[in-house]
Amino acid sequence: MGYEAINFSKKFKLFNEQWEPKVVAEMNDYQFKIVKLEGDFIWHDHNNTDETFIVLEGVLRIDFRDGAVRVAAGEMFVVPKGVEHKPYAEQEVKLLLIEPRGVLNTGHEGVVVQPRMMSGFGDSQGLFMALLRRAAQLCRNSTYRSVQICESGSDH
Amino acid sequence: MGYEAINFSKKFKLFNEQWEPKVVAEMNDYQFKIVKLEGDFIWHDHNNTDETFIVLEGVLRIDFRDGAVRVAAGEMFVVPKGVEHKPYAEQEVKLLLIEPRGVLNTGHEGVVVQPRMMSGFGDSQGLFMALLRRAAQLCRNSTYRSVQICESGSDH
Repeated sequence: MGYEAINFSKKFKLFNEQWEPKVVAEMNDYQFKIVKLEGDFIWHDHNNTDETFIVLEGVLRIDFRDGAVRVAAGEMFVVPKGVEHKPYAEQEVKLLLIEPRGVLNTGHEGVVVQPRMMSGFGDSQGLFMALLRRAAQLCRNSTYRSVQICESGSDH
Repeated sequence: MGYEAINFSKKFKLFNEQWEPKVVAEMNDYQFKIVKLEGDFIWHDHNNTDETFIVLEGVLRIDFRDGAVRVAAGEMFVVPKGVEHKPYAEQEVKLLLIEPRGVLNTGHEGVVVQPRMMSGFGDSQGLFMALLRRAAQLCRNSTYRSVQICESGSDH
């Protein structure tokens, strides 16, 4: 049987868009998502889950209401559930996120349609994302979903 | 408030022993464990959970009854629950493991005393581990527990 590892670098070459997490693997009810971030996100929290950030390239800053943490390549940080935070990256940073299935980046769980593993990631989120980013500070209910990338032939 | 990222390289400098996973962070009911491996482990499976391997340095091979996967630095692999596997590393490999709390590396869940976050990791597992490694192929019930490292002042 052909088993194949998930190579983060190869996966990152499959897309350019920022702020659009792509599911690359699943473990039980959890998803591993890679994402490219640059600039500022909105303040949010996750009421029902911790959220794990593992930085693969670049530097991420996570702001909290009472401080901040710098997470560089080769480092990880777990944001505890219920803690308001805001990711920020001065230059593009490449991350691995780990969250339970169905978690939204903005913390508004419960609205999302459960994503499924799919080949490629052609979708129409680009425009949605662009609009979202502009409106993010104003529109508290805006959410975006992660999409999934799974090369054909991969086991995950 | 002082927030601090978990730096894998710094954590690996805190110990030399192989085959002894150290818990460096927790997310909900899951644990992130770093471990140094070299040589062969025993065949085992986990009936109740998938198991995630993220290679940080070196190359890991995971053997299955019907094949094998090579996982190099910058790659990950999720072993599905119930699938027999045997990790192997020709030279020392440094890994991040992700598993639910209480999982034993040999797959014999249910026997372990739940580990707790602790400072340092002074314990008497070294001898146990040495004995285990020699006896591993013969003694199907041998297990080992992960220990936890948490630098004082760290949030995790």
